[in-house]
Amino acid sequence: MSLDGGLVEVRALTFDVFGTVVDWWSSIIAEGKALEAKTGIEANWDAVADRWRACYAPYMDKVRKGELPWTNLDSLHRMILDEIVIEFDLGRLSEEEIVEFNLVWHRMIPWPDALEGLERIRRSSTIAALSNGNVSLLVDMAKHAGLPWDSIISAEVARHYKPDAIVYEKAAQLLRLKPAQLMMVAAHVSDLKAAAGVGFKTAFVHRPLEYGEERRVPESELEGFDLVAEDFLELASQLGT
Amino acid sequence: MSLDGGLVEVRALTFDVFGTVVDWWSSIIAEGKALEAKTGIEANWDAVADRWRACYAPYMDKVRKGELPWTNLDSLHRMILDEIVIEFDLGRLSEEEIVEFNLVWHRMIPWPDALEGLERIRRSSTIAALSNGNVSLLVDMAKHAGLPWDSIISAEVARHYKPDAIVYEKAAQLLRLKPAQLMMVAAHVSDLKAAAGVGFKTAFVHRPLEYGEERRVPESELEGFDLVAEDFLELASQLGT
Repeated sequence: MSLDGGLVEVRALTFDVFGTVVDWWSSIIAEGKALEAKTGIEANWDAVADRWRACYAPYMDKVRKGELPWTNLDSLHRMILDEIVIEFDLGRLSEEEIVEFNLVWHRMIPWPDALEGLERIRRSSTIAALSNGNVSLLVDMAKHAGLPWDSIISAEVARHYKPDAIVYEKAAQLLRLKPAQLMMVAAHVSDLKAAAGVGFKTAFVHRPLEYGEERRVPESELEGFDLVAEDFLELASQLGT
Repeated sequence: MSLDGGLVEVRALTFDVFGTVVDWWSSIIAEGKALEAKTGIEANWDAVADRWRACYAPYMDKVRKGELPWTNLDSLHRMILDEIVIEFDLGRLSEEEIVEFNLVWHRMIPWPDALEGLERIRRSSTIAALSNGNVSLLVDMAKHAGLPWDSIISAEVARHYKPDAIVYEKAAQLLRLKPAQLMMVAAHVSDLKAAAGVGFKTAFVHRPLEYGEERRVPESELEGFDLVAEDFLELASQLGT
């Protein structure tokens, strides 16, 4: 890398996954429509996707506040899906179909630039997933989508969810790097601010379609990040790889 | 897979690493000789390799018995290397050279069949490292050698060393599989017996050269394993992949 501003010391990049590497919104809608075609059970799958994701933060908060004991993301996703089944009148789905639909999070589709960008960045740095997804979810997703992680670090190992500081600290500890040798890559300001709070470098990647075509994410407050890129290809170029 | 004896349900294989996937003995000797060529400091590098490995189990036992707090393998390797420096009169090595030599465990050379075998097995099953090596050691080794792990599970995450049962249990928990859906692959009987004790299937792979040409490992008591193979290519064939 030929970089200024302390970025030369970056040895590993840690990536947020949902929304940053993979397109959870389109993935859920596609599998919902396939389920509809198979079972004849109709639903507004855009709304299902929104609802599933909207409940993600409040359910992690239940764990954070001790209202739930440590519960991994597969199990939180299932709790939310059980609510969705009632709310969207999907009660005719069998238990087997519900179990299978819950695993859509293991089969997410990467953004079009993600694989090529990761392969390029991987030539000069270690690339690690750093996600609230549980280990088996992230392993299945990597195998399914061909994500070339050098390392998968899950909140499940820290038994805390991002943006709790301990998750980033755990990643630095496991990779035996100082926080300043790590760069967090995410499409979400809160994730990056938390990582920066621990001492990570930060790269914001725009994912304007995270919530679908019709609701482009507004330009957020983007000052204070070490890098800002349109996608992983531009990020790779900024990193000189 | 077209297999009998309950092996059809195997979804993931967990691999011991030192001695089973990589040739630690030759790797240490090669780097020792390179260090000698660079510094002029001579040693019996075969004996250094033996000594380093021989102290591995007793040092893990110190952690197991609580004589040491949890200490990862890089740090145990360094403690042993500090003894070796005295015993083999290597005191003229600089601190930087000692730090670098300790990282030889991050740069181990795979057995000749390992990469091709892993790539083949990976087509039909999840493949995971399940090693006493710490996370950064295993990540560096995989990147250096091109080991195509789907998942790296380290004793560091369980904060216990194999063959403690909790390490195998932790692997099953993180991969969200029942023990009977997992197969432990190792060149060491003790590792396999411990995995079987938790309910894993087992595959013994011969590595007769683990301790060098002159001390071929005797045929151990090999009954009771689900598979026995000469190398990873034969293992892949036995798995039908």
